[in-house]
Amino acid sequence: MKKGVFITLEGLDGAGKTTQIKRLAAKAQALGIETVTTREPGGTALGDAIRKILLDPAYKEMLPLTEALLYAASRAQHVEEVIRPALRAGKLVICDRFLDSSLAYQAFGGGLAAEYVRYINEEAVKSCKPDRTFVLDLDPQEGQARKGQMKADRMEQKSLDFHKRVREGFLQIAQKEPERMVVLDAMESPEAIFNAIWTNVAPLLSILR
Amino acid sequence: MKKGVFITLEGLDGAGKTTQIKRLAAKAQALGIETVTTREPGGTALGDAIRKILLDPAYKEMLPLTEALLYAASRAQHVEEVIRPALRAGKLVICDRFLDSSLAYQAFGGGLAAEYVRYINEEAVKSCKPDRTFVLDLDPQEGQARKGQMKADRMEQKSLDFHKRVREGFLQIAQKEPERMVVLDAMESPEAIFNAIWTNVAPLLSILR
Repeated sequence: MKKGVFITLEGLDGAGKTTQIKRLAAKAQALGIETVTTREPGGTALGDAIRKILLDPAYKEMLPLTEALLYAASRAQHVEEVIRPALRAGKLVICDRFLDSSLAYQAFGGGLAAEYVRYINEEAVKSCKPDRTFVLDLDPQEGQARKGQMKADRMEQKSLDFHKRVREGFLQIAQKEPERMVVLDAMESPEAIFNAIWTNVAPLLSILR
Repeated sequence: MKKGVFITLEGLDGAGKTTQIKRLAAKAQALGIETVTTREPGGTALGDAIRKILLDPAYKEMLPLTEALLYAASRAQHVEEVIRPALRAGKLVICDRFLDSSLAYQAFGGGLAAEYVRYINEEAVKSCKPDRTFVLDLDPQEGQARKGQMKADRMEQKSLDFHKRVREGFLQIAQKEPERMVVLDAMESPEAIFNAIWTNVAPLLSILR
């Protein structure tokens, strides 16, 4: 029985997800809400080992299919070990990327059938759907500029066209699930974005206080 | 267009697959047949990184679902990088474990739905089905005894009951596909087993000579 609240943040690298997650967690905790922040790929010891493979620029030959299966493997373990137990315990779980990233990156970006990506993740995420998902929408060129001199990982090294398709993917997914997904302009100030997130999330969190 | 011949060997650890693969490859090469021997999980740089995770005894918490997805990820890369190109080039490919191991270990052994295991592998193995598969059938207790003092990997450390279900799984899969699959008694001498394999395989290989 799920009793907690599950929130995910999605968007291109550089969109500001980490900043918003920190702020959201701090504010929730200040209100006495037990909060777990986590991320994908990763979130568990095993998931972090998979993450290392996924982001290692050495594996240039990795297929979108292999990627999709590795993300799903990391997610299966993550949901079982971390997310589901925290939700059962009535906590707030805030996750940096989740299933929508697999759809945006491997289906829209990598060209896999969205149906296939959904299916391979089905066992992993069943009964563990986010209550609310915020998409921080950003032009991929701006995302790259924000990353600046930081060393790009394997996913970040993909082409601008790839990242344009990923952005478009997030927007299309969000259009289909307006009740769950909220698109925010990542060019707004962090304060404005946080206010939008908090205004939206506060009613959901009231059940946890 | 596939022009080569694809042979897989299946069975519990300790059944003697490695010995038979070496003999088969040596005999085929002696006849002038270009031969590639490979294995799963692994077979590529990326696959070997996944293999390390799969067999690491440290990950005791790994779910059958996570396992199945990791094996499928390794397989996707393996088929694309190694198996399919070799078959296209008209070679003989001999592989130590393939899809049947995922069905036997994660479905029969681990309790996942066989349908799900088949589906997640479908994209990876399409147009790359083995021409012939030999199951070296062995009592799991005998398999463990043969391994003796060798350090057991994570899969080998699973219970005797698990390995009994895996053995049963191989036999059931073989019953359903008698044209592709041949069950051999792994208690026979290596010579007798090799003779049975060679008698069966020789007609298939005639197209390669």
